[in-house]
This record gives sequence, structure tokens and C-alpha cells, in this order.
Amino acid sequence: MSDLDLLTVGEALVSLRSSGPLAVGGPLTMHLAGAESNVAIGLARLGHRAAWVGRVSDDELGEFVLRQLRAEGVDTAGVRRDPDRPSGLMFLERRTADVSRVRYHRAGSAGSALCVDDLRAPLAAGPRLLHLTGITPALSDSARDAATWAVRTAAESGIPVCLDVNYRSGLWSREQARSTLAPLAGYASVVVASADELDLVAEPDADENAAVADLLRGGVRTVLVKLGADGARAHTADGVRHVPAVPVTAVDTVGAGDAFTAGYLSGHLDGLDLVDRLRRAVALGAFAVAGHGDWEGLPRRDELSLITGSAAGTTLR
Amino acid sequence: MSDLDLLTVGEALVSLRSSGPLAVGGPLTMHLAGAESNVAIGLARLGHRAAWVGRVSDDELGEFVLRQLRAEGVDTAGVRRDPDRPSGLMFLERRTADVSRVRYHRAGSAGSALCVDDLRAPLAAGPRLLHLTGITPALSDSARDAATWAVRTAAESGIPVCLDVNYRSGLWSREQARSTLAPLAGYASVVVASADELDLVAEPDADENAAVADLLRGGVRTVLVKLGADGARAHTADGVRHVPAVPVTAVDTVGAGDAFTAGYLSGHLDGLDLVDRLRRAVALGAFAVAGHGDWEGLPRRDELSLITGSAAGTTLR
Amino acid sequence: MSDLDLLTVGEALVSLRSSGPLAVGGPLTMHLAGAESNVAIGLARLGHRAAWVGRVSDDELGEFVLRQLRAEGVDTAGVRRDPDRPSGLMFLERRTADVSRVRYHRAGSAGSALCVDDLRAPLAAGPRLLHLTGITPALSDSARDAATWAVRTAAESGIPVCLDVNYRSGLWSREQARSTLAPLAGYASVVVASADELDLVAEPDADENAAVADLLRGGVRTVLVKLGADGARAHTADGVRHVPAVPVTAVDTVGAGDAFTAGYLSGHLDGLDLVDRLRRAVALGAFAVAGHGDWEGLPRRDELSLITGSAAGTTLR
Amino acid sequence: MSDLDLLTVGEALVSLRSSGPLAVGGPLTMHLAGAESNVAIGLARLGHRAAWVGRVSDDELGEFVLRQLRAEGVDTAGVRRDPDRPSGLMFLERRTADVSRVRYHRAGSAGSALCVDDLRAPLAAGPRLLHLTGITPALSDSARDAATWAVRTAAESGIPVCLDVNYRSGLWSREQARSTLAPLAGYASVVVASADELDLVAEPDADENAAVADLLRGGVRTVLVKLGADGARAHTADGVRHVPAVPVTAVDTVGAGDAFTAGYLSGHLDGLDLVDRLRRAVALGAFAVAGHGDWEGLPRRDELSLITGSAAGTTLR
Amino acid sequence: MSDLDLLTVGEALVSLRSSGPLAVGGPLTMHLAGAESNVAIGLARLGHRAAWVGRVSDDELGEFVLRQLRAEGVDTAGVRRDPDRPSGLMFLERRTADVSRVRYHRAGSAGSALCVDDLRAPLAAGPRLLHLTGITPALSDSARDAATWAVRTAAESGIPVCLDVNYRSGLWSREQARSTLAPLAGYASVVVASADELDLVAEPDADENAAVADLLRGGVRTVLVKLGADGARAHTADGVRHVPAVPVTAVDTVGAGDAFTAGYLSGHLDGLDLVDRLRRAVALGAFAVAGHGDWEGLPRRDELSLITGSAAGTTLR
Amino acid sequence: MSDLDLLTVGEALVSLRSSGPLAVGGPLTMHLAGAESNVAIGLARLGHRAAWVGRVSDDELGEFVLRQLRAEGVDTAGVRRDPDRPSGLMFLERRTADVSRVRYHRAGSAGSALCVDDLRAPLAAGPRLLHLTGITPALSDSARDAATWAVRTAAESGIPVCLDVNYRSGLWSREQARSTLAPLAGYASVVVASADELDLVAEPDADENAAVADLLRGGVRTVLVKLGADGARAHTADGVRHVPAVPVTAVDTVGAGDAFTAGYLSGHLDGLDLVDRLRRAVALGAFAVAGHGDWEGLPRRDELSLITGSAAGTTLR
Repeated sequence: MSDLDLLTVGEALVSLRSSGPLAVGGPLTMHLAGAESNVAIGLARLGHRAAWVGRVSDDELGEFVLRQLRAEGVDTAGVRRDPDRPSGLMFLERRTADVSRVRYHRAGSAGSALCVDDLRAPLAAGPRLLHLTGITPALSDSARDAATWAVRTAAESGIPVCLDVNYRSGLWSREQARSTLAPLAGYASVVVASADELDLVAEPDADENAAVADLLRGGVRTVLVKLGADGARAHTADGVRHVPAVPVTAVDTVGAGDAFTAGYLSGHLDGLDLVDRLRRAVALGAFAVAGHGDWEGLPRRDELSLITGSAAGTTLR
Repeated sequence: MSDLDLLTVGEALVSLRSSGPLAVGGPLTMHLAGAESNVAIGLARLGHRAAWVGRVSDDELGEFVLRQLRAEGVDTAGVRRDPDRPSGLMFLERRTADVSRVRYHRAGSAGSALCVDDLRAPLAAGPRLLHLTGITPALSDSARDAATWAVRTAAESGIPVCLDVNYRSGLWSREQARSTLAPLAGYASVVVASADELDLVAEPDADENAAVADLLRGGVRTVLVKLGADGARAHTADGVRHVPAVPVTAVDTVGAGDAFTAGYLSGHLDGLDLVDRLRRAVALGAFAVAGHGDWEGLPRRDELSLITGSAAGTTLR
Repeated sequence: MSDLDLLTVGEALVSLRSSGPLAVGGPLTMHLAGAESNVAIGLARLGHRAAWVGRVSDDELGEFVLRQLRAEGVDTAGVRRDPDRPSGLMFLERRTADVSRVRYHRAGSAGSALCVDDLRAPLAAGPRLLHLTGITPALSDSARDAATWAVRTAAESGIPVCLDVNYRSGLWSREQARSTLAPLAGYASVVVASADELDLVAEPDADENAAVADLLRGGVRTVLVKLGADGARAHTADGVRHVPAVPVTAVDTVGAGDAFTAGYLSGHLDGLDLVDRLRRAVALGAFAVAGHGDWEGLPRRDELSLITGSAAGTTLR
Repeated sequence: MSDLDLLTVGEALVSLRSSGPLAVGGPLTMHLAGAESNVAIGLARLGHRAAWVGRVSDDELGEFVLRQLRAEGVDTAGVRRDPDRPSGLMFLERRTADVSRVRYHRAGSAGSALCVDDLRAPLAAGPRLLHLTGITPALSDSARDAATWAVRTAAESGIPVCLDVNYRSGLWSREQARSTLAPLAGYASVVVASADELDLVAEPDADENAAVADLLRGGVRTVLVKLGADGARAHTADGVRHVPAVPVTAVDTVGAGDAFTAGYLSGHLDGLDLVDRLRRAVALGAFAVAGHGDWEGLPRRDELSLITGSAAGTTLR
Repeated sequence: MSDLDLLTVGEALVSLRSSGPLAVGGPLTMHLAGAESNVAIGLARLGHRAAWVGRVSDDELGEFVLRQLRAEGVDTAGVRRDPDRPSGLMFLERRTADVSRVRYHRAGSAGSALCVDDLRAPLAAGPRLLHLTGITPALSDSARDAATWAVRTAAESGIPVCLDVNYRSGLWSREQARSTLAPLAGYASVVVASADELDLVAEPDADENAAVADLLRGGVRTVLVKLGADGARAHTADGVRHVPAVPVTAVDTVGAGDAFTAGYLSGHLDGLDLVDRLRRAVALGAFAVAGHGDWEGLPRRDELSLITGSAAGTTLR
Repeated sequence: MSDLDLLTVGEALVSLRSSGPLAVGGPLTMHLAGAESNVAIGLARLGHRAAWVGRVSDDELGEFVLRQLRAEGVDTAGVRRDPDRPSGLMFLERRTADVSRVRYHRAGSAGSALCVDDLRAPLAAGPRLLHLTGITPALSDSARDAATWAVRTAAESGIPVCLDVNYRSGLWSREQARSTLAPLAGYASVVVASADELDLVAEPDADENAAVADLLRGGVRTVLVKLGADGARAHTADGVRHVPAVPVTAVDTVGAGDAFTAGYLSGHLDGLDLVDRLRRAVALGAFAVAGHGDWEGLPRRDELSLITGSAAGTTLR
């Protein structure tokens, strides 16, 4: 795991997707899911060396998770197999053409048993970046301790930390989230959030400008605000920049935020300036929503030009 | 079948759906279809006690129909198995992205052999509402007699009748339809029609206002005019009310009219006022068109809020 | 339709196949079915010029039937489109691994409206052989007249007739079948039957030898008795010959009898002697049962050696 | 729930089936699973009035379970929706043509929260028979208490109890199972077990005869020993009877034991003598293994003759 | 092949379609593909007598190609089976909702071995029209010679030639294409091109008007410019006519250009005037894009009205 | 690629599988195929460090190959992407239940362009074993040179070489194969062959004993003869040992020989004695034939006991 560009930490789930109302039954498809593993895949597809660390079950579902990560070229050397706990699952139901619903089966999962010891070796190897989301500290006490330890340790070692707020109302309340995430944000170099998540890493009910000011004051270098179809904004000490979204036919919005983050971090690793990082971020977001699956549609480096240009349609060569 | 909220009468078909041109072949999926059973399912999903009565074949296809109705919680105690006649079938062909075609195989079917005796016991049990469509009297002489008897008997017993015109040009001419349906409408409390069906329960070539005036004069309390993407209008003695459609991504318009009627009748049973009944009606229509299948996408009561609110997209909990 | 090797006459159905219990629902696949069209396809695959004549509906299902026949190279120039009647259907349900069930929806079908006029031109073109089955005369009065006329006319014109008894208990009683089929057999050159069908073209309750003696006395040249896994017997004036079945893994027995007949007639057209005709007949039967579908597994001429030789397994070239 | 023939109590799961190695991924199909609900379905298909009682989650998966039970005509009036716990799941992996593997995700499930109060009303309604398995008391303390209470209460009320040992090594040890199940067996009228489960309701390491003697002495009237492909034995005070299995092509052995029990109990309800009950039991077992799914292949009453007769193959009518 | 309305010459490929990113794997569907065979199918569906000539492999893939062509009623009597060369393949990957990618495996294919001798007999039979595309001369030297010979011979025999430029950058450069295609255009009566292909049959960098002037001067009677969603323009000596596209929901743009050409040629064969030919052309283009597959959605003559009228939606008869 | 247990060299193909006759069409599934990559996967699944080296296309199909190998944990660091050549393909057609057919599209493929330079680094890294098959030298001159160089270099470096004869009649004649393979066998430590392949690495028409004597005399230590359902024989200087096959339900024999070799080499790496190596070899062969796909059914180490024990059937835990 030496020479890593990115280390991500979290829980990887087996996502079971329906193409219609779940109550009626019908076939499900199996997918790897997980906000952090999505980011790792996004970077690996672009040729960066990315690792994912976490716990997976010691059965076929854990094996499935590992096969998918390895297939994508994500380093899994630091993954722990938990012999006592099952894989976390999620059902992703296509309820209508416009409405999808998620139901988690992750209480007591292998992934939620993440602890500090799981992270010592991977972090000691010295990755160039560390990425976490606000989901991990919500999984369990030990996972919260692990996330906190990792963020603090990285910051102390000079490894820039990226934190995506990623609030999940099914896991904890906004108050619980704020009390855990706001301190974490203090160690982060980059904070990613949607507009309605910003006050979870700042004062309650703070508006965007106030929350950003808080964060920048606390040491964050860049605050990225995801705006969906409206693109994204980046706040830094130098001010704010906005880029619009890339217009595509959206078929599946799950994973778009993770793709956005992966694009931004890829631009960072490539030494791009802020606006070009944002452009890559929204480009990856566009790939994510224009294809089915959380990450299956993400581009390799040679594919980046496919949808940033204006000409869509079939390419006949 | 005591304490029923709604009794529906009609023919339930086995619908065989293709996802492309039928002449090219390919897999078909089996579905329960039928305007009246769609309405019964719509109400049962919302928690009302709904029954469907009709004849089904005494073979695997009849069993399929019953399994689907039972699965949806529709009371099937009054259904008759016909040992001598096959199930009615329909092929629903997705010819292009915009054009679907229906071809019926229902001549001589079990469902078309419906007769007065099939309806005596269910109606005697005293449902709160009776619903029929203009399809049933077009199926056979005995079915027409049964529909006429049911509507008249219900009206005489003080059971409000809802009649959906539902003109099918493959079954009879407009003239034949008018001569049968106009008298039926005289017994109805609620008449449902699309704009071009109104003159089938009024004078030939009557425009909407003239037709409505006729119907109200004849004793109808409410005339509902389905306007598709333009929503719906309700005419009563107090005047006319309009509600717009709920904007959704439409993927399958089949069953939208039945969903509309189910929503209206549910509002009636819940004691809503006219505009709120219409709102529920168009909401159910929106669910119907936003999902595949005639009725598979209809909401349970706890799902009603899913698409009437403004926020679409994936719900992550 | 000149220079035809074989003319077949009958009803072609759209077969809807389930892979499990039909009452539970699930996807269905569309197939062309029909005893006579199966024989035509069997011969066309082997390079003979074969035609099928009958009536098909003037809609997408009729188009489907024609597409399949044309794809297989069967001459369809004599087929009539019936604008007023639907396609005959059959549901083929895989009830258990060992038990399949068939349910017909063919009453009043286009195919059952076959009449003498439909056959005049095709027969006048002078095919080398005419093939019919005992299903056709059971479909309707006009179909029975057409079958009778065709057999008699062919016999009078010196065109050898092959008659497969193919008794369907759902269409008529054994007594009805015997009264129609026994006279037809008098015009046949080749009669094909399973052991329990022989007395339908002879005296009631006649055993195999008695029935065969009757038939040979009446002018039949060859009586073929299909024995399933035990192969087949051929009776002629010269005595009886038996060939065993070709051992294969059987996955679908539907269509095996038609494949057998096609193999025999192909051997006849190729001038093979009796035992080699039987060998080709049982070889085609083996292809039919070793593949899914009524006729999809039948061999082209260059494939005949695939399962008559002893070496099974994957061929790596 | 009045006039019930059979009341079953247990946990119903959502079974997710793969058709190949799970680690490789691929589509999964959703099925209702559960030893007790399988028995209820088996009896309902044969026309008996059967109910299933248990807890299901208050979400789409719980709705799926209810839809399946209702579709099969199983009375679900006594089912409780648990708003706080998820559905129990199982993955059924087809690892090789001969080996399937099951992995449960049922810890903390709604079904495992079953308690005595859930059963009071259903049992007070006075079913003719009560059926439980040894799985339920292994799920949780409250479920064990509920099972014990139900068996004792039924026995005291004169309702015959059927207990299927159904040992699951993933849920408890043999010692734990024995200490719970042996007392339960004391209340049972019928005990069902495979040969290696008998000592779980008798002395440790008891052989079949010793265990049976123990059970009969303790008040059990009939001990049924399932022998798989060797059929089954029934021990009573009058001695032992054996019936062979019905030979079929086995494609899926899951659910065979439950089908066996359903057949036996159906024979009991129909007043058959012991050997005929066993014959129906092995017939239902044969249906179960000859079809895919736990219960999908079970017969309706009119289908019982399909595989007890000797002639297999396609039925052409 | 007598009395042919249209002869087309080219390579028919087996197209393997994915519904998502190809690198991830998943099922592929097999389709017949080929610009010229698409045109032949388009005309055959409308009732014209159309033939396709080319070489196909002498194996199962060649057989697949022939089955599809025969199914569509395209005359295949002139097709040659090449025993030494494989079928040409193409992978059609649905990369995102908006971007499809094509990868050819056609080097050294049977189709690319087309030569003059393959075309002598078909052309000598005297079709009413000859259609070629700019793909064929790019396949090989012998194919180029064959295309050139055919176009010249047809022109000399008074058979009008239609040439669709159809530039494929994967097969040759624009310069190579121009040097071959510009002379071919000199023999054509109708030239079809997209706006950016026009200069491949005229002077380099010529704009539309200049290129058209060149072509008309060289003897071309009609130049058709395909404008996609903007419809099409036709240039003749009498000036230029434009027709807008027919608005439909586009799901698959592959094959739209071939459908356009088929519609135009059908109008020519039916004696329509220029604008009505263009209307049929854009109507067929609309059918092509509104359905999946290169040609599967093309209309029969009785279906032409389905999408030219204004009323879309389900047709209930 | 340091500390490798096994290095394999060859061509990896994309296999397109049908479930029925290919000429009829239908869906295909994509699989990784290749005798050498199968062996690498077999060892990687058992926990050995295995690498595969070869050339793959620089497009989506090459990416697919790499994703599959990485998913299985096979080291792909030495793989070369060839920008100029397409992926080799094979169609694997399930013609009947017993007969599968393979058709290669591999002429001019990236894999066939393998050359000595591709192998220098991987071999220099010093794997514990080198495995090749007789397919690679048949692909091209450069591939033959590369295979010869690798075998000779390994032998000279003290790396034991395993050579599987794997004769493919579609690639070369027996005489061509013998002239190339017999010298290669001289460098091998282990030679694997089916009985009818032995004389390709010995004298023409040599029987098994003569061929083995030749090979042992030439320096081979172990000659393994694959006997399919009869198990396998191992010849060494100490004599001959035989082990029977493990009885399983065979559903797909493709890949069985490669699985056998993987099992043998795994036993070798684990230090098992000859008979235990053979036992593992036939066990892996059994896994391969009991599952669909070339390698998908191969066991992980913890799964080895699943089918070597006697008890088959569903494992309920």
C-alpha cells in the first residue's frame, strides 16, 4: 500500500436494486455500494492509486465486495475480514420513474465494527490524501472513534483530509451529527457538502456564507458545495467560484456526489487549479447520473472527453 | 363480503406485455389487467375494503388472476370460476417509445359470460359504493343485462354508483355504446369520462357543457372529465372545478384513468371535499403513469406523499 | 411454390412458454408452434424445399408466425391472412421438471377457418409429398373438409400422403377422431402414430399388429410407430423393422414426434432405404428432445453428425 | 380467523436466490421463505383454511411477505407489523449443481421479536391444528416463550399440535436445541424429524427406535421420520409404516420437508388413514423437489394426480 | 430475384449490444446490422421487393444473418457463403444514456471479401433501383472494385443508383474516402449525406451549396441532406425543399439514416412527389429512433400512420 | 510480481456464450476465457500468488479481461495493452444439452501478437512455477518463439515448467503441433495431456506407455493423463497412480482440464504427495464441471471440502 494517492475509510455495502416497486417482488441486481469506495473507484478509474479500508464479512458477500474493488483496481490490502458479523446490505428500490428509496440493513454489520486498530497500518503507510464521509462516524462508537483518530492523525502527519458531510437521517439526528462532525471538520483540508448539510459542520442554522466562514476560520482550505443540476460552488480564502453542471440525460442520481468528490480529488492530485478541479468534479458527476449504478458509469482517463464536449450521440468509428 | 367499501364488477384479463414490436417476438410478461379490478386494487392499497366480482377461467390463468387480486387484498369471495370458458387475454405491445397497441383475445371468454345471478349475492351484501365501466356491458348480452341490473338495483337500494364510460371501439360502435350507456348513466351518482366520451352518455355530438347539463339533469351528482396531462375537471350542481395534473416522468400511461377514479372514490370514502377528492385522483393518476404496469405503481396510504410533494429524487434514509 | 419437395397443411400457433407454474406468473417466451409447421421446418433445415399452408391472423401475431417460417426458409407464398379472426394461442407450462401442460386458445382462430379454397393452388402446384396431421380435421368443419379434400386430391394425383395421427383429446373424442381419421388413412402412403393412437385409424381396440394389417390392407405402404425412448418401428408389406432411439439428455420432449416425421420424410426424399429413413427419423427426434423449443434444435444437414456419432461433449476447434 | 383448519406460527423471511456462485454476483430473485409459512401455503393450496402468524417489518419487504401469503390464500389477519425491526433475510446460493448454501440475516429481525401476546388472539380463535417448528424457539427468548406458551396452551385446549424439529445449527447447538425442544415435544401430537434430528427430542444419542419409544411414551401419537429419497416412516403405538418416495427429477430440495408435513396434515384434516396420509406427504415432497422455489411448485387439489400417477411427460389436451 | 424493386449490396454484420459499459460485462444481445441491409429491410417491410447481396460466413453467425434477412422478407438468393472467413462483428456499447460507442471486428471478414463476380448475376436480373453506401468500397480492394463496377454497370443499364456517403473514420481517411466516393457519385441518381459528409463527394471543404452544385452538374438528380432532429433537405435542379423531423421520443439513433433512405426510396418506387418522398423518409427515421435496434422498429405499410399523425399514446381497440 | 507462486503465459479471450442454438439468436453472456488464465484463477482462488502475462486489446474488451483477472486476484502487472489489435473472441454455443460448439475469432488478435520481449521481465522476477499450454505456440510465429524462449529460459533458471498439451485442431495440424510441442516438452517438469494428445509430445502413434517412457526419458518428472469421468493417471519414474473422478452432476465441462491442472499445481505448491495432488486435481475438475462457466465455479480454499465429502444437498446453517 505504499505510494498511495488516496486512502478511503468506510463501510462497503452490498446494494440490492429493484427496477420497480419492491413490494411486488421481481429480480434484484447486486452491486457494491459505499460512499467512500465509490470515491476510491472514481480515482482508480482515472489512474490514481487508491485504497479502501474497512471491514467486510468473511462469507460470499464479503468476497463479492472484494471482487468488485479488486476488479476496479482499488487496493484492498488493508481490508479486514470479520468472521462474526454479516455484510451490511441496502435495498435500492425504484419506486417510480422519479423516486428511488433506500432501506439499510447495516445494524451490527461487519463494516460498522470498524475500529482504530484497523486503520493504523494503512495510515502509517503515508497516503497523499485521506478521504472520509460523515456516514462512518454514525455507524458505531468504535467507528466514530476510528474516524476521529484517522482524521486527527492524518492532519498531524501533514496528510490532507477530505471530509464529505453526507448526512444520513436514518443513522442519527442532525444534532448528533453536528456534535461529531463539526470537530472532525476542524481537521479537514477540504469539506464537501450539499447546501442543506453545511450547518452540520458549523453553527446550527448557519447559512452558507456563515458556515463557510466558520470552516475557513477553523482551518479548512476549501469548502465545496454540491448544487445538483445547478453545478457546484467552491469557497476558499480567495473567494467563491461556481461551475455549472454538465447537461446529460440523467438516469440514476445515486453516487453523483461521490463522483463529484472523486473528480475534485483527481484534479487536486493532477495539480489542476481550482476551477479545473471543479470542472472535473462536475464532469464525473455527469458520468454518474448518465449511467445506471453508483459507480459503474465513471470514466477512465481516456473517456473524460466523452461527455464534456458538446457532441453527444453514437460514435461510429 | 360484509362491510365492503366498494364493489366492482367486470372482466379481469391476463395482459401479456412486450417491450418492443410484437412481430419480432421476444419475452412477454404476465399481468392482471381490467379497468374495474384496477380500481379495486387502487382502493385496497389505500386501505379501503374493496371487492371485485366477475368470472374467471377454471385453469392456471384464472388462478393467476385470483392470486394477483388476493395479493393486493381485494376481496374475491364473490368470483365465479367458469369451467367451460378460457381467460380473456390482451397483448399490450410497446410499438415505439410513444405508441403502445392493445389487441384483445376476449371473445367467448369466461369474463364475458357474466350474468345477473353472479351479482345477486355480492350486491345484496350492501357495499358502500358500486363501480362499473362501459366495457362490461359491451362484452355480451348477459354481461349487459348484468351491468344494467346491478346499476338499477344499487340505485334503488341507495348505493351510489360510479360509472366510467371507458369506450372501447374494438367492442362496439359509438351508437351501440350510447344506446346502452346513456340509460345506465341515469342511475349513476358519479360519471367519469374523457372529453371525447361525454357524448356517449348524452346526446350525440353534445359538447362538454351540454353533456354535463344533460347528466346533472338526469340525476348524476358529479361528472368527472379526465384531461390527461391537463389534469381533470369536476362538474356538479355548484359549478365546475379544475385541478392540474401532478408533474412526473411518465413511463406508462395504461391504467391512469382507473387510478384517477380510484383516487376520487377513496377521497369520497374518506369524506374529503370535492377539490381534495380531485387532488387525490390526479395524484393516483400520477403514480400510475410514473411506473410500469396498469396498477403496480399505485400507492399505499403511507406513500401518498411521495409524489405530491415537490421534492423528487432518491430518498436516502 | 413450384418444385416443392413437401407441402404441409395445418394451423400454426403462437406458443407462450413459462419456465415454471403459470399460476405464479413470470415471463413467457413466444414461439411458433404447430405440428405441420414443425415438419416443414425440419425439412427446410435439411435443405429440402418445404412449404406450409394455412391461415394466420392479419395482425402482429400473424406477422410473428410468418417471420418465423420465413426465417427458417419455409415457403409461405400460399398462406392466407384472415382479417377477421385472431391467432390461435397455446400456453405451454413447465409445471414440474417432468410435467408440462398445454392449454389451447384456438377456438374460432384464423387457423381453424382453413377451407378447401385455401388449398387448391398450393396442391395444384404439384409438391412431391403432402403431409397432414389428425389435428387439422379436428379444428372445424371447414378444416375437416379441407383436409379430406387435400388428402383425396393428392392421392388421386399420385402425390404420396403422409398422415400423422396426432390425437388431441382436448379437440375431440376418440370416437369422433376415428370416424374422421380412419377414412383419411385410406388415402395415405405413410401413417405415423404412437402405439396408443393406432386404433384411431383402424378398428376400435385393435392391437398394433391388427391395426397395421388393416392399414396395409387398405393401401398404406408404411406404418411408423413412435416408441419414444424405445425408438421406433416401421411396418411394411415386407415385415417390421425397429431402430432404437439415439441416447441424449432430454430437456424438452415437445416436438419430438414432428421431428421424427421430418427425418423420415427427408430420408424418403433423399432416396434412403427404410432403415436409414428410420435412423434419420430417430436422429431428428433426438435433436428435438436435446434442445429447448418445438423445433429450434433441429439440425441443418451439416449438423446431422453431431449427435448420431458416439462422442458427445464440447467440440473445441 | 374463525373456522381455521390450521394455525402456523413462525418467522417468514425474504429469500434472495442466486443461480450461481454468490461471490461472482449476478441477479437474485426474491421469494417468501419460512418453514411454517411453507406448511400454511401447502395446506391452503389444497383448499384447507390455513393461517400464518408472526411479525413482519413495516416496510416494503414486510409488504412483500404479506402479498405472497395473501396471494396463496393464507389468512394473515393475525400478522403483526413491527415498526422498529427489519425483515429477516436469507441468501440461498446455488454454489454447484449439487450444493446450495444458505446464509441468514435474521438476528434482530421483526420475526424474531415474536412474543406471547402476538399469539393470544389467533390461538383463542380455536384452529383445528397448530403447527410449529424447532426454528422459532431458537430465534430469541421471547420467541421461545411464545412457542412454549402456544404449544402448551393448545395442548391444554385439546388442539392437536404438530412439531417439526427442523434443527438449524446456525441458530443454536444441539444441546441447546434439545433442552428446549424435548419439553415441547411432550405437548405434541405429531412430531416430524429427519433421522438425525430424532435425538433432539429424546435422550442424547438415542437411536430411532429408542427416541420413538421415548416420544410415544411421552404422549406423542405419531412420529414421522423423513428419509429423503427413501421416503418416510411413521411410528405409532400400532407399529411402524413406511412409504417410498415418489420418483421425480429433483431440481430443488429446499422446502421438501415442509411440503411433506403439509401433505401429512392435509391427509389428517381429510380423515385419511395413516398410510394415505404418508402417501400424500411424500407426494407433496415430490412436487416440492420437482420444481424451483420453496413452495411455488406445491399442488392444488386438482393437481395431486399429476405426479402420483406413473406417466410423466407433456400433457397435450 | 426477378421483378426486384431494389438491390442493395454491402456487408451485413452481427451486432452485439450491451445496455451499459462494456468493460463491466453483462449480457449482450445479437442483432443483424448493416447500412445496406437496413435499407433493404425498410423497403421489404413496406411491401417492396428488396434483395440484399453480399458475403456471409459459412457458420452459425452467417446463418443468423440469413435467418434475420429471410424473416424480414428480404431476398437472399444472391448471397454467397464464404467458407474461409468469419462474420464481421460490431460491439455497440451503451456507454451513457447519451453516448453509444461502436467497435468493429470486421478486418478480414467474409463481408469484406465481396468481389465483382458476386454481383454479376444479381445485377443482370435488372432491379428497378440499386443502393450502395460509402462503407462498402472502404472494406477491401475487391469490395471497392465490386462497388465501382456495380455502380457503373447499373448506370450504363439505366438502373438508377442511390449512394449514401456514410463515412466511417475507422475504415479510411477523408482523403481516401473522397478519392473513391467522388467518382462513384458521378454514376448516382440520388446521393444521400449528412451535412459534414457532402464534401466527400465534391471538392474538399466545399460548403453545402457548392457541393450540391458540383453533384448536380455531374449528373446527380437529387441530393438528400440528413439533418437529424432538424429534418432533411432535398436539392434538385428545381431548387431545395426542406421537411422538418417528426417529433418522437428518441431512444436509439442507430439506423436512423438508413431508415431515412429507405423511406425516400419507397416514395420513389410508389411514384410520390419529392416532398412526399421526404415526408416518408423522415417518418421512417422517426420510427427508427423511437424504437430499439437498427431496424426492428421500422413500419409495415399499415403502420405508417402510427407516428405521422399527431395523437401519440396507447391505442385501445 | 515478486514472490510469485505461478506465472502463466497465454492468450485471454472474451467468450460469448449462448444458451441455445446460435443461429436462432438470443442473449449472449460475456466471460473471460483462456486455458492459462483459468489455471491462474484456479490457483489464486486457493490463495496462491498467481500472475498471468499476455497481450490484451487497448479497448473495452481488453479492460473487461483485466477487470475479471483483477477481481480474481490474479497479478496483471505484466500484461501489455496492444493499441493496434482487437481482442480475441470465442463464441461458445450450447447446441444441444450434450453438445457445445466453439468458434474462434482470434486471428490477428492482440493476444496472438505475444513476443519474447513481453515475457522477459515477468520471468526474470523468478516465479516458483511456470505454466504454458500448447495453444500459445500455435497462435503466431512470435507467440511460438515467446513460448519456446520462456520454457527454455525457465528450465535453465531452475524454474519448473508445467506444459499442458491442449491440442486445438482449428489452429494447426497434429504434425505441426508435434514438431513444436515435442521439443517444448523436453524442458517441462510436468506434462499434462488427455490420452489422445500424448503422442503429440512423443513419437507419432505412440501409445500411452510408450509416450510416457519417451517423456520420462527426456527429463519430464511427471506425466498427467486426464481421463474425464474416469479420473486421471500420473506417471513418474516410480510408476503409475490413478485416482477416480469425484462424482458430481456435470453441467458444463468447459474448463475442466484447466481446473485439473490448477489443482495439481496447488498441491505441488502446498507440498502434497503425488496422490494428494491428484486428488486435489480431480476435485477442482469436479468443481469446474458442476458449475457454469470456465472458472466461475472454482473453489476457494475453505470451499474445497464442499464436494469432496459424500454429503451433497443444501447446507442449512
